[in-house]
Amino acid sequence: MKTREKILLASLHLFNEEGESHVTTVDIAHEMDISPGNLYYHFKGKEVIIENLFDRFEQSFGEILHAPIKNELKIEDSWYYLYVVFEEIYHYRFIYQNLSDLLQRYDSINKRFRKILNTKFQTASSVIQALRSGGIIIIDDDSIDVLVNNIVMTVTYWIAYSNLREGKQSEQAILHKGVFQILSLIAPFLSEGKAEYRDFCKKFYQQSMNP
Amino acid sequence: MKTREKILLASLHLFNEEGESHVTTVDIAHEMDISPGNLYYHFKGKEVIIENLFDRFEQSFGEILHAPIKNELKIEDSWYYLYVVFEEIYHYRFIYQNLSDLLQRYDSINKRFRKILNTKFQTASSVIQALRSGGIIIIDDDSIDVLVNNIVMTVTYWIAYSNLREGKQSEQAILHKGVFQILSLIAPFLSEGKAEYRDFCKKFYQQSMNP
Repeated sequence: MKTREKILLASLHLFNEEGESHVTTVDIAHEMDISPGNLYYHFKGKEVIIENLFDRFEQSFGEILHAPIKNELKIEDSWYYLYVVFEEIYHYRFIYQNLSDLLQRYDSINKRFRKILNTKFQTASSVIQALRSGGIIIIDDDSIDVLVNNIVMTVTYWIAYSNLREGKQSEQAILHKGVFQILSLIAPFLSEGKAEYRDFCKKFYQQSMNP
Repeated sequence: MKTREKILLASLHLFNEEGESHVTTVDIAHEMDISPGNLYYHFKGKEVIIENLFDRFEQSFGEILHAPIKNELKIEDSWYYLYVVFEEIYHYRFIYQNLSDLLQRYDSINKRFRKILNTKFQTASSVIQALRSGGIIIIDDDSIDVLVNNIVMTVTYWIAYSNLREGKQSEQAILHKGVFQILSLIAPFLSEGKAEYRDFCKKFYQQSMNP
């Protein structure tokens, strides 16, 4: 692995663990056992490192959000899809843990993050509308907006909220609980089979937590 | 007004507007047109100012969350109650805008904030259980947990989310939208009169936004 790549991985690790605002380029160089001068040769400051990491997040998350939505939506498929969404956010959680501050300090990332939020909104909206067209859920237009806002908010803040509410947990536990939370919020709108859907979600959740 | 009080108000204003991590005690002294020495005479550093502001938030928010829940819950009452909850958070929004970072830096506040979060959870739980006992909503125990988590998450992150999603808005707009969001999430569980409840919420929301 090239030094440049090693620096990015070490930075991502430190940002996620310590919080981005608490990590300096000297910390990163120290963690990697290289000189600050060597680090500077590859990246001219922390902002450049953050932009490079954000580029990666933007690209991979964009691909996930633009993944085609199948018409026959199965609960298992939704579960895995949402799991992948949360997994990607968890992988770059330093962005989400301190969102307002980060966006305030890095103006270029601010605009791009808002775009991602918009895509999240559109994707969630398409899925809910597909569920309605397929007759799987019954929901009026006003409630769609509320539900979609709620899904996007949960996707965005779940990891921070879960950490705050329940303290240290495994990555798996945090992510599965997030998926369960979102799917449970859709349940009340099911046209039929509500009880079966809930039972399935609960069973799937329990199996995922104790494989 | 005493200097001590003026310092607290000026700090709250600056923290809310600029973000707490971007404000120094020198900025606060500058804003007030007093010397840093004079400020230091009243508060021995930023941490003490933050602790004093948090004391106030803790006390007033605690009183709101412990306000007795009436048995006959009317939509108007819920609306005003939730509005007051959001108003209080908005008043001290610097705490919420940069939550993870703030709690990481101030250990004493961390423990106290988690306690407040717990009280939020208990209050929301009591309200939902009262609505169920009163036959107003139909909901099983598992779904109560999901709904309560969702209410607490919305209360905690709505202001940050709304700012991110919709950019600059009036205080009133942000708060009424938050109340509307939470009440709409309860609507699907209503035992009857769902349509009337939704119509009422929508009308009340529109009136509140265009008084």
